[in-house]
Amino acid sequence: MAENEKKLVEDITSMDVDFAQWYTDVVRKAELCDYSSVKGCMILEPAGFAIWEMIQNGLDKRFKATGVENCAMPMFIPEGLLQREKDHVEGFAPEVAWVTHGGYEQLQERLCVRPTSETLFCDYYERKIHSYRDLPKLLNQWCSVVRWEKTTRPFLRSREFWWQEGHTAHATAEESRERTEQMLNLYADFCEQELAIPVIKGQKTEKEKFAGAEATYTIEALMHDGQALQSGTSHDFGDGFAKAFGIQYTDRDNKLQYVHQTSWGVSTRIIGAIIMVHGDNDGLKLPPHIAPVQIIICPIMQKKEGVLSKSAELKERLSAAGFRVRVDERDKNPGFKFADSEMRGIPLRVEIGPKDIQNGQAILVRRDTHEKFTVALEEIETKAGELLESIQQDMLEAARRHLETHTFTAETVDEMKSILDTEKGFIKAMWCGSRECEDAIKDQTGASSRCIPFDQEHISDRCVCCGKPAARMVYWGRAY
Amino acid sequence: MAENEKKLVEDITSMDVDFAQWYTDVVRKAELCDYSSVKGCMILEPAGFAIWEMIQNGLDKRFKATGVENCAMPMFIPEGLLQREKDHVEGFAPEVAWVTHGGYEQLQERLCVRPTSETLFCDYYERKIHSYRDLPKLLNQWCSVVRWEKTTRPFLRSREFWWQEGHTAHATAEESRERTEQMLNLYADFCEQELAIPVIKGQKTEKEKFAGAEATYTIEALMHDGQALQSGTSHDFGDGFAKAFGIQYTDRDNKLQYVHQTSWGVSTRIIGAIIMVHGDNDGLKLPPHIAPVQIIICPIMQKKEGVLSKSAELKERLSAAGFRVRVDERDKNPGFKFADSEMRGIPLRVEIGPKDIQNGQAILVRRDTHEKFTVALEEIETKAGELLESIQQDMLEAARRHLETHTFTAETVDEMKSILDTEKGFIKAMWCGSRECEDAIKDQTGASSRCIPFDQEHISDRCVCCGKPAARMVYWGRAY
Repeated sequence: MAENEKKLVEDITSMDVDFAQWYTDVVRKAELCDYSSVKGCMILEPAGFAIWEMIQNGLDKRFKATGVENCAMPMFIPEGLLQREKDHVEGFAPEVAWVTHGGYEQLQERLCVRPTSETLFCDYYERKIHSYRDLPKLLNQWCSVVRWEKTTRPFLRSREFWWQEGHTAHATAEESRERTEQMLNLYADFCEQELAIPVIKGQKTEKEKFAGAEATYTIEALMHDGQALQSGTSHDFGDGFAKAFGIQYTDRDNKLQYVHQTSWGVSTRIIGAIIMVHGDNDGLKLPPHIAPVQIIICPIMQKKEGVLSKSAELKERLSAAGFRVRVDERDKNPGFKFADSEMRGIPLRVEIGPKDIQNGQAILVRRDTHEKFTVALEEIETKAGELLESIQQDMLEAARRHLETHTFTAETVDEMKSILDTEKGFIKAMWCGSRECEDAIKDQTGASSRCIPFDQEHISDRCVCCGKPAARMVYWGRAY
Repeated sequence: MAENEKKLVEDITSMDVDFAQWYTDVVRKAELCDYSSVKGCMILEPAGFAIWEMIQNGLDKRFKATGVENCAMPMFIPEGLLQREKDHVEGFAPEVAWVTHGGYEQLQERLCVRPTSETLFCDYYERKIHSYRDLPKLLNQWCSVVRWEKTTRPFLRSREFWWQEGHTAHATAEESRERTEQMLNLYADFCEQELAIPVIKGQKTEKEKFAGAEATYTIEALMHDGQALQSGTSHDFGDGFAKAFGIQYTDRDNKLQYVHQTSWGVSTRIIGAIIMVHGDNDGLKLPPHIAPVQIIICPIMQKKEGVLSKSAELKERLSAAGFRVRVDERDKNPGFKFADSEMRGIPLRVEIGPKDIQNGQAILVRRDTHEKFTVALEEIETKAGELLESIQQDMLEAARRHLETHTFTAETVDEMKSILDTEKGFIKAMWCGSRECEDAIKDQTGASSRCIPFDQEHISDRCVCCGKPAARMVYWGRAY
């Protein structure tokens, strides 16, 4: 290892020493995210935003394939509009930012910067929906929203964050429930297939559900440190918002009916999940499907004749084969470039120097396993494709193993505590369904209910907390 | 014409009767844009946002081909940061929205909602740029910005609008000037090639330039009513912002230097230009290159066996050939569908009924000329492609002719007035360069200086206003 390489790698705190500091180091050194001069707001730097663009493209295609269309709502909500649905305003009012002045004049009515846009979509739907022919409405927007959080962390919790929010309106309760589940499944598939993150699908408890929803579904992922991260949610509103906003349509029998609605969202939080599920002590580790750069070409002895031109030629060939490729031509030694490419999480590295060129070969190095492969240049496209696909699958497998080996069962709260303090991870335990037990568990263990999973198991007959009969199994965990 | 068709078309005010009302009718009936419950803020409806998405995709590819990377800055600017560059704050402070409270607490420092993000990028660059190796920085973001306008109109002027803002930092004044021009040319090419809108390229006068810029370049388009629309701007900041924000780098000789910066933007305003350059009394007319739906298939007698399945088959084939296609399967008569598709500006219509199927043909109708073509089904992909390309070129030609026949020259202010009141359009006239004459012309004619065009002509020796010697020819016009 070259001197520079060592130094670069040593700059990242070991995740076993201090996971939180490791996370911050990766975010900062891979230049994903920077702090801004606005307290609690972050800057998505090009490397971080490029990941978000990949996620946007991937999700957007999947949304559109289900009939969803994009639109753009205003970023402001008049105070009166926010207050129309009682539970909703109670949930969000404590954490919104208020605009009180436009230019030099005080506004007649305060405007909040949207923390989420249910009220705006409802207001719009009330005007647009008249007949069953106008249904369903399947809209989505990509935007940022603002919630005035006290403590913030890059990607995980910030006062402004980027997301998509889908808002749909349907003729019947069945249709809105189906759409809620459809979008949750879409999120789960996307996480597994593209982000290589396995997730638990389930329903939130009454305590944890979205303000104003009838039911909230969630996908929960497990981070490397054993903490959970809620990675996407899908809400079934029933006709609650429709009644608050008067969204009615005439059905085929000419009767007036309320619509049934859903909303669903995934945010830049998910980038935090990518970092904390896949990263290691060398830095970031990006799944090939969503890595903005999939292959980095590192020329060795690049001042020797032919090395840079061969690197450019390989870039050309690999790009033509459909890969996202970059050449690191910087005036740095190879050791530095290797460590740098690993720190930035690029899935596959191609090393090529004068000797390699002479032998008609290159060295390919996997980011995930550090395995090296000597590959004949004429086969480089095929081999790179195979390796990238292996990396994608192996990263998913590794994450799946981690999830499995860090999912436990418990029959008492003491057991829960001991697991959370030592082995760390998800705990499956039975629950009687009472808010009292949910609160008590949180107080005693620091773990919240993550979800009532769709895949139920029978751990025991009794609630882990009160010992009364319990029919439902819940995933519990300490969470970001 | 069927009864329904007539009715639909009659709903759009004739552009000769009331151009402003025609514009509003098109915007509303084509469902591009809706008013929101926030005064002065608009909703981009799916049909309008889809056009914006096409523009985003097209421009974004062109930006990235020049090395630009995307990022995301916060939407808020602390008051102190906004005030760092004197001219800039003077230009924008009167029209910004202020956030004063987060949750239930008053903020220690007010935050404005970004009217533009120079100050945020400068703050970031000050931290990120140290050495000549860090240059150039070529960043862009797609977002919405807020300017508290008094009077608003859909797309043309609203309190919140969507745009992209590019912000670059360079080692030298030459480089920043080159980038400013490069982006202006990129915008002009995009307008002509994709939007079929010819533009005049030039420099803004001192009076009209961006707050804080050394030079502002602009592309100006001419609407159907003879009014101008500023359609994109590119600003050269020199080292003005760098000095205000202390953005310095060490050059190759280890000397400390200020960077030179640019910024450039195109907004949803440009959708207003598409409407007002191409639209007619039947409604919207979209250039095929950026039409979200390029081909609409209207089944005739769709309840007859085989019509809907043949329509679906044609959709499949045309989609596979790379076109954006939709079938109008609604339970409406053909006349309504034809008028509806024209009103929504879809470039090419395919009409297919039982007789056509029997004869192995379909009718293709151009939106721009209403020309009809009987086309053998086996040739439909080729013919559709040819027609779409003809439409694109002919729309550009038509817009070019309109621009040429509505560009006049004048040697006196009286001549200017008379042209602006009767024929309407751009006026080329000489200018001495004084602010007094510029103001006087505006007062007397209502026309502002649009730009000092790069392509200069010699109209006369003297300023159109004061009669003193004048070396520069200026485009003048009433403007949106």
